[in-house]
Amino acid sequence: MKIKQPSLIIDKEKCLENIRVMASKAKINNVNFRPHFKTHQSAIIGHWFREYNVRAISVSSVNMARYFSDNGWHDITIAFPLNPLEINEINEIAKNISLNILVASDDGIQEYFTRIKVHIGIYIEIDDGYHRSGIPFDQTQKIDKILSKITTYPFLKFKGFLVHSGKTYTAKSKKEIIGICNNTIKILKELKQKYSHHSDIINLSIGDTPSCSLKDKFEEIDEIRPGNFIFYDTMQYYLGSCKLNQIAVALACPVIARYPERNELVIYGGAVHLSKDNITDNNGNNIFGLAVQFDNNKWSEPMEDTWVSSLSQEHGIIRTTSELLKGFKVGDIIGILPVHSCLTANLQPYYLTTEMEVIPKMRKGII
Amino acid sequence: MKIKQPSLIIDKEKCLENIRVMASKAKINNVNFRPHFKTHQSAIIGHWFREYNVRAISVSSVNMARYFSDNGWHDITIAFPLNPLEINEINEIAKNISLNILVASDDGIQEYFTRIKVHIGIYIEIDDGYHRSGIPFDQTQKIDKILSKITTYPFLKFKGFLVHSGKTYTAKSKKEIIGICNNTIKILKELKQKYSHHSDIINLSIGDTPSCSLKDKFEEIDEIRPGNFIFYDTMQYYLGSCKLNQIAVALACPVIARYPERNELVIYGGAVHLSKDNITDNNGNNIFGLAVQFDNNKWSEPMEDTWVSSLSQEHGIIRTTSELLKGFKVGDIIGILPVHSCLTANLQPYYLTTEMEVIPKMRKGII
Repeated sequence: MKIKQPSLIIDKEKCLENIRVMASKAKINNVNFRPHFKTHQSAIIGHWFREYNVRAISVSSVNMARYFSDNGWHDITIAFPLNPLEINEINEIAKNISLNILVASDDGIQEYFTRIKVHIGIYIEIDDGYHRSGIPFDQTQKIDKILSKITTYPFLKFKGFLVHSGKTYTAKSKKEIIGICNNTIKILKELKQKYSHHSDIINLSIGDTPSCSLKDKFEEIDEIRPGNFIFYDTMQYYLGSCKLNQIAVALACPVIARYPERNELVIYGGAVHLSKDNITDNNGNNIFGLAVQFDNNKWSEPMEDTWVSSLSQEHGIIRTTSELLKGFKVGDIIGILPVHSCLTANLQPYYLTTEMEVIPKMRKGII
Repeated sequence: MKIKQPSLIIDKEKCLENIRVMASKAKINNVNFRPHFKTHQSAIIGHWFREYNVRAISVSSVNMARYFSDNGWHDITIAFPLNPLEINEINEIAKNISLNILVASDDGIQEYFTRIKVHIGIYIEIDDGYHRSGIPFDQTQKIDKILSKITTYPFLKFKGFLVHSGKTYTAKSKKEIIGICNNTIKILKELKQKYSHHSDIINLSIGDTPSCSLKDKFEEIDEIRPGNFIFYDTMQYYLGSCKLNQIAVALACPVIARYPERNELVIYGGAVHLSKDNITDNNGNNIFGLAVQFDNNKWSEPMEDTWVSSLSQEHGIIRTTSELLKGFKVGDIIGILPVHSCLTANLQPYYLTTEMEVIPKMRKGII
């Protein structure tokens, strides 16, 4: 197969190595490794985790839980606040597998707990200060209320506390990331201590890729749920969570125009392929991706002083140097390391391996 | 059908009115109306244009040209720089319909013109100073070169000059938008004059929704190609291109958590539903969408002091007032007027009308 349109290329060897590293770290620390499959959304890529003894996963939607349940995964946490409009679908899935859901707010829980008709594990999501979702860690009266409700419903089992430390994504240094994570672990340990009378087993689950990549030890944590680490991306590289050669996906894009007078290339590859997520570098440049040279569907490190500087729906503009510009002509393929691989992967209908095999993904279809 | 997950709702009446207004303006001005179908990517919605006598369309990819050609459109401009890797596919499509392509750079044109084997119309894309793609308007030696090449290939017919005035999207006032457009028209008229010896018919084609919405007269322009106007969006409202009640799409999202202590709601509706495109308002707030109340699948004007303040992959955070927050509970549906409806629409697998009819879209599938 010849690449003709923007195509997300996966380096399987790098993915397997990224999985191996994270699985080993979990094993050494004796924590459960429950990777987040929202990043890749593919049954075939999911299967790659099997050889590292992964048996439990996280997903971010009920649809995704159904897809992976249909593809042989029997222990799934929907690591996203319970959507009460989908309780019937949750009941259906939980008939066949071990399913955990997340309670992120005490609003209306009595009503929706009543509608759960099969055995389900409940995690209480804790807000460690990131303020996305979860019960603020210091509002223990809400935690008390949720726990007391859980005990009145025989189908429900309290499993533990779960956090997404999203603050690590805006940290300025590795030290800051580790500091945020340590603080989150401290919060979770205190909750575990406080509620130890309630349950013998209270799992503490953390999830963000920066923390899971940078910390070596996970004292008293029971579970890690990173997702992005399988592919990594430019944002994780800037955060210090990965090396450039760990980035396992690149969007292969045809060069469609060259403008030497402004040192820019135009690629077929835009917001509908990469997403508009971007980072600002130390020089104040908005970066929508780093550009790499393609050779036999593998890629090198990013080219110096070369980045995707803007995106329209289907166009990407690459700013580069006059020297590098000379090396490209219209019709060449250039690779882009995405800023946020989860969003880029979400936009693709399929992946291609470096051997040009098609890897299908979950489809978003008519209901 | 009951909405359970983020779903893009289309108000068909508003769409028809938006089409009617633009089609009337084109008719009064005696310009060809060639709407850009990249915004909706749907054969059914495309059909809505038929009753306004639209027979010619623009698309932004070869795939889209094939899809609309297969769905009864026989006059299509691929308003995107020619990707030489897809010339075989272009030849296939142009066997059956009247197809125009865009030349945006003189690099390699001899080689790819040689490979065109069927009758094709050629527009030369002109860069009016926006610096995305196109031949800079003052580099007439490149235009000369392209025109002389076109004449040596019997299958090729020069059709005219085409511009996308993307600068209007960052304009600060209606007056500035009109000024940008007038300048672009001036540039195009000068080119038409300069090359009048070359062809009897040189069409001048402009495309951006802000200009096409705000200008009343299109002196000496032959064609308009707006796309976004069928749906409009929050960005167009901020630019002054539309009124709030002309915005014809809203993402219906379940409320999944309420946090009164920070006046925020969390919705099931994130970057994978809305896209990360955002605008900054006069108070420096980053806005990822405006929130509207849903009533029987129709919506009101945006709620005061209420907007989507951040997006993760599947979560959206709505900042609101304590008063409005009281009116919502977990499990309610709230509507979001997207910042950029083209990117939001692109992320949907289908649309729903306000009568809950499913409107399918072009699918992005395995090659």
